[in-house]
Amino acid sequence: MRKIVFPLLIVFVSTSVAFAKNAAVSEDTQSCIECHGTLHPGIVADWERSRMSRVTPAEALTKTDLQRRISVEKVPEYLAGVAVGCAECHTMRAETRNDSFEHEGYRVHTVVTSQDCATCHAVEVKQYGHNLMSHAYANLKNNLVYHSLVVATNGVQTFEDMKTTIKEPSSETNADSCYYCHGTKVEVTGVRAVETDFGEMELPILSGWPNQGVGRVNPDGSKGSCSACHPRHQFSIEMARKPHTCSECHQGPDVPAHKVYTVSKHGNIYSALGKAWDYSAVPWTVGKNFTAPTCGTCHVSLVASEEGEVIVERSHQMNDRIPWRIFGLIYAHAHPRSPDTTIIKNKAGLPLPTELTGEPVVEYLIDEKEQDKRRTRMQKVCLSCHSQGWVDGQFSRFENTIETSNEMTLAATKVLLSAWEKGAAKGLAHDDSIFNEAIEKKWVEQWLFFANSTRYASAMAGADYGVFANGRWYLSKNLQEMVDWLEFKVKGK
Amino acid sequence: MRKIVFPLLIVFVSTSVAFAKNAAVSEDTQSCIECHGTLHPGIVADWERSRMSRVTPAEALTKTDLQRRISVEKVPEYLAGVAVGCAECHTMRAETRNDSFEHEGYRVHTVVTSQDCATCHAVEVKQYGHNLMSHAYANLKNNLVYHSLVVATNGVQTFEDMKTTIKEPSSETNADSCYYCHGTKVEVTGVRAVETDFGEMELPILSGWPNQGVGRVNPDGSKGSCSACHPRHQFSIEMARKPHTCSECHQGPDVPAHKVYTVSKHGNIYSALGKAWDYSAVPWTVGKNFTAPTCGTCHVSLVASEEGEVIVERSHQMNDRIPWRIFGLIYAHAHPRSPDTTIIKNKAGLPLPTELTGEPVVEYLIDEKEQDKRRTRMQKVCLSCHSQGWVDGQFSRFENTIETSNEMTLAATKVLLSAWEKGAAKGLAHDDSIFNEAIEKKWVEQWLFFANSTRYASAMAGADYGVFANGRWYLSKNLQEMVDWLEFKVKGK
Amino acid sequence: MRKIVFPLLIVFVSTSVAFAKNAAVSEDTQSCIECHGTLHPGIVADWERSRMSRVTPAEALTKTDLQRRISVEKVPEYLAGVAVGCAECHTMRAETRNDSFEHEGYRVHTVVTSQDCATCHAVEVKQYGHNLMSHAYANLKNNLVYHSLVVATNGVQTFEDMKTTIKEPSSETNADSCYYCHGTKVEVTGVRAVETDFGEMELPILSGWPNQGVGRVNPDGSKGSCSACHPRHQFSIEMARKPHTCSECHQGPDVPAHKVYTVSKHGNIYSALGKAWDYSAVPWTVGKNFTAPTCGTCHVSLVASEEGEVIVERSHQMNDRIPWRIFGLIYAHAHPRSPDTTIIKNKAGLPLPTELTGEPVVEYLIDEKEQDKRRTRMQKVCLSCHSQGWVDGQFSRFENTIETSNEMTLAATKVLLSAWEKGAAKGLAHDDSIFNEAIEKKWVEQWLFFANSTRYASAMAGADYGVFANGRWYLSKNLQEMVDWLEFKVKGK
Repeated sequence: MRKIVFPLLIVFVSTSVAFAKNAAVSEDTQSCIECHGTLHPGIVADWERSRMSRVTPAEALTKTDLQRRISVEKVPEYLAGVAVGCAECHTMRAETRNDSFEHEGYRVHTVVTSQDCATCHAVEVKQYGHNLMSHAYANLKNNLVYHSLVVATNGVQTFEDMKTTIKEPSSETNADSCYYCHGTKVEVTGVRAVETDFGEMELPILSGWPNQGVGRVNPDGSKGSCSACHPRHQFSIEMARKPHTCSECHQGPDVPAHKVYTVSKHGNIYSALGKAWDYSAVPWTVGKNFTAPTCGTCHVSLVASEEGEVIVERSHQMNDRIPWRIFGLIYAHAHPRSPDTTIIKNKAGLPLPTELTGEPVVEYLIDEKEQDKRRTRMQKVCLSCHSQGWVDGQFSRFENTIETSNEMTLAATKVLLSAWEKGAAKGLAHDDSIFNEAIEKKWVEQWLFFANSTRYASAMAGADYGVFANGRWYLSKNLQEMVDWLEFKVKGK
Repeated sequence: MRKIVFPLLIVFVSTSVAFAKNAAVSEDTQSCIECHGTLHPGIVADWERSRMSRVTPAEALTKTDLQRRISVEKVPEYLAGVAVGCAECHTMRAETRNDSFEHEGYRVHTVVTSQDCATCHAVEVKQYGHNLMSHAYANLKNNLVYHSLVVATNGVQTFEDMKTTIKEPSSETNADSCYYCHGTKVEVTGVRAVETDFGEMELPILSGWPNQGVGRVNPDGSKGSCSACHPRHQFSIEMARKPHTCSECHQGPDVPAHKVYTVSKHGNIYSALGKAWDYSAVPWTVGKNFTAPTCGTCHVSLVASEEGEVIVERSHQMNDRIPWRIFGLIYAHAHPRSPDTTIIKNKAGLPLPTELTGEPVVEYLIDEKEQDKRRTRMQKVCLSCHSQGWVDGQFSRFENTIETSNEMTLAATKVLLSAWEKGAAKGLAHDDSIFNEAIEKKWVEQWLFFANSTRYASAMAGADYGVFANGRWYLSKNLQEMVDWLEFKVKGK
Repeated sequence: MRKIVFPLLIVFVSTSVAFAKNAAVSEDTQSCIECHGTLHPGIVADWERSRMSRVTPAEALTKTDLQRRISVEKVPEYLAGVAVGCAECHTMRAETRNDSFEHEGYRVHTVVTSQDCATCHAVEVKQYGHNLMSHAYANLKNNLVYHSLVVATNGVQTFEDMKTTIKEPSSETNADSCYYCHGTKVEVTGVRAVETDFGEMELPILSGWPNQGVGRVNPDGSKGSCSACHPRHQFSIEMARKPHTCSECHQGPDVPAHKVYTVSKHGNIYSALGKAWDYSAVPWTVGKNFTAPTCGTCHVSLVASEEGEVIVERSHQMNDRIPWRIFGLIYAHAHPRSPDTTIIKNKAGLPLPTELTGEPVVEYLIDEKEQDKRRTRMQKVCLSCHSQGWVDGQFSRFENTIETSNEMTLAATKVLLSAWEKGAAKGLAHDDSIFNEAIEKKWVEQWLFFANSTRYASAMAGADYGVFANGRWYLSKNLQEMVDWLEFKVKGK
């Protein structure tokens, strides 16, 4: 077995990861490491730096409520006294799944699922199930409107006789694009023989692999990949709390949370001074451990004061503090009640939470009372550093921006409806995709890029992004260009 | 009173903030902390990390000239011997302002103004007053041309009968957009009763609040928010010297200083090696404290050599080292004489420093002699690490780029003038906004985005940004698209 | 002579730069420092932090093979025993070059060339010569197709009588744009007298100076500027290994490697946890020194396991691990055999590695066997942390994306060919630039921006960038806009 090396440097940088000793490693995990430590040295060394390799579940259970990082009351006895190692996660629940395979005397599985993680982190996995993200696969795949956006974006097109035609994109293309973040469906589709240093081995073939998308559908049927935010094999809370993690899926013009953060005062303080903060402390103490919020602070973490008072509870149901849904849909609207949005139908029969002209489909959305509750929860975080007057001013501006950005989307929608009506483009009435023509794509950008971005810039106080970078300037310019296009098209007919 | 905790971690990271003891805290500040330490724990803990909480003005005055961070010769006696705490700033000059209110036996005010900061930092506030930024509110608000750009960008539009109409944007929208960086006008507009943990309180209602824009007009009539760059309540010089601070307003395509910096050699050295530099030393010693410049080094800071020789003096009149104004206006031109640009009128009667065709309105601009002086000052910074041949080559290229980018703007302007003349769009002669139609918006992008960005990339040697990211490629493409548009429009008539 | 100061802080941050003592400094270098330490203090202090100032070549030669940073077996005796200082590099090989000049009793030269660096780093310089980058000047300058892209991008245009005309850009403009990264040709073009603190001096005038482009043609005829990635005068391996260095030229939409990296899991781990890694260790040990790859890890560095096994050899021929060329050209294709691409001719007689319709010009490109070899080499890096199934899945997706992105380029090319055929634009048959008209520029963006970016996002698993930021969304939208344009143009005729 390889020696377990204590990374000395970390002692200086972050005192809270300075464990004095390592936990006992199970014999099973030791046998994994014997080969894989040589085959994949990076993976094993990464795990050695992790808390998983140093603290047993039994020790984790001895912490006080506020300090606990484990959310079950009891873990199975065979797991309690050893480090959480290779074998513990990759041989777990073998009888309940069809993706485990015989490997050197063990039944192992490649994909560790949210259900596996729930063995110790049950509350987080349950909360996460109430999160839109956990349903990100089906919410995209089974929504006919959104599926046709995927096709119009990813499908290969050809040009012949002044016309384009489009092919349905392959699952490989989709996995490389939208489903990278939304999550793929990972299933065993067969077996292959692989030549290795240790002889030929039979290994399962997995569809949609690799993938760490937030809504990954796992071989055991569970939803979500915890490694989206807690990447293997260090599973570092520091990582999850830093904004870079979120930027993997929240950087592009459609959902520019991280870009807005980097030009906000919060983000600037993080970038300039954040090197001195403690990202591993549980609970996370405002002012002591950090002096400006990261994404995690506002949306997920258990935040406390130095006096030990809880400011907000930890929640992996991230919409817990979010009254509005400001991106991804045509209009901003109250947050949906259920994380499964495939159940939504508007009056026009489309699977959308608003009509094409913006009216919300209220029966599927949270009501004002629930919005108030969530707004109050979020404001508690703000109030750790800001006065009520400041916070009220900020929220009033934000809700004004929701309204005006929706109005700018409505204006663009009216241009599109007029184009369809005049036969300048083919839309719903022609049973044609509403995303395949140039004018339709401009319409999509109005809400998916510009209105969303304007709202993000407002919500997170990163105004620079919401004016000329991807915001109001384009809301206005794009609308004028749509009108010009329509004029050219109608005159050209 | 809460214990004042010494943040241990900082000792390892940055030796220059390792003060041995804290300054005495006034009784008034102690009473503030008693409640606000619990109500807003983050704010208080942030201040505890600051130099303000540790060094009294009296101690600050004992430093040598080069090491001084305070620029008055004397501070009022009641302030001299205590830490600069809550009460010191938030109850100051109560008699001179109408925004202070009765609060638990004190007259306090929410907004600390540049005039308040001038109590100790008079030279900086005075210098800053000569900075365009200090006038950023009026320079936008009271310039009719620019005000119409604000309206065309922020106003909500509607579409009916193939025509769009636009509404004047609300002050709330403007505060969430342009005025976030330019600064709002903050005034007391009324009083409201707020229910708090300590009973009902009467608090003033402030217009344009919150805001930390560089040209904020304060309730006491002073201009500028020092917290734009020195954010509350740590007021860290490290923060001000790091480029992230500037990025809050200088990231977008209209003024992409930070984006250019990140692809410049200077920026790359900062990103890769800057973690080991000392950002808190005064004076800031080239080579010893840092090995590549940040924004502050070139534009603001007191830079010295290890031998104690001053390379450049500190200046909060940031244009002190800037001969040209390369962004925000239609053409690059010599820097304006006065920070108040509302006084400028060109031959056509417009409040612009050049004619629409580029000729400078010389009487309002600095002359070549003053440009030389400023260029020389800037070059002194360059020469700390570069030979004269290098520096001359760099400046020669930059001034060539000013010229060629102006020419590319002129070409686009001629297309626009032709469009107005041919009636393809409505401009000055039709008494119509010059920013509301699609072709006009393309013209704006030619100078506000592409010419500006090309010049920034040249000035700061971040060429990657000035070619395909936002520079010459678009100068050329946008011009061709304007010509195509005009052709379509004229033929379609 | 200035005291050589030991930067204390570095001890805490990165143990591997903690040298106990400095190397002897030659008398010649001491005389340089006497004046230049005062004239350019930053430059000298920077060098003092470098390994060059602390380790003599003789000491460097005592290291074991795996730990060696010098790649010759022997260095000239006069260099072996002293620090690599000013005089060592700037007076070297004076007899072989025409850019050295008399200066205070020495013959010195300003530009240190790759041939100078080869005195100690011969293997790296030789490998680098097989790199496309070393030929980046001529590959752009002497390729008529690409030269016309430079003209269409950088040339100043004028508008008169509804027509634009374009001027050939000056060498100063080109040096500020494309050649900043590609490298300029630096030659002595004359002599000038400069007034200095030490009296008048005669100094050579250098064309194309300053420049640190990767393919710089040096005054001694050699190619490449090592300081592109190892910037003066710290020459830090930490710097070269960090992704910021690469971002200087690989950030824009044409080659967005760094942008993709920042949204990849690898990049996010680097951003969040990379502060604790050791970037100076040689060899670079996976898992121990770092836990996720930077650009250098996959493309350049000598990577080893903790057991001392070499995973991949160091290579400054960066295409050693690259089977495909995915950017810069119209279609992705197998990597060219020779770094000098000016020799390539396709069937149509154009200096391009594919036909306009995508078929590769195979005789100039590496064959499948060579591609396999390079793919295997790259996969060895991947396998340090990932299973074969993961790696196979990743590469299969990537090669699918190469195919589909090429197909989307073909569709756009067909629109362009149709435009040329119908006389809607002027192309090859009209002996006109294929880059000067708006529709041609849209075609360029299809491959140079959108197809390239889609492939980068796939290759480096940063999907967010390859969908809405600069990828598939635009491949699809741009094609539809090209079709619309063609329709308008043909109807308008």
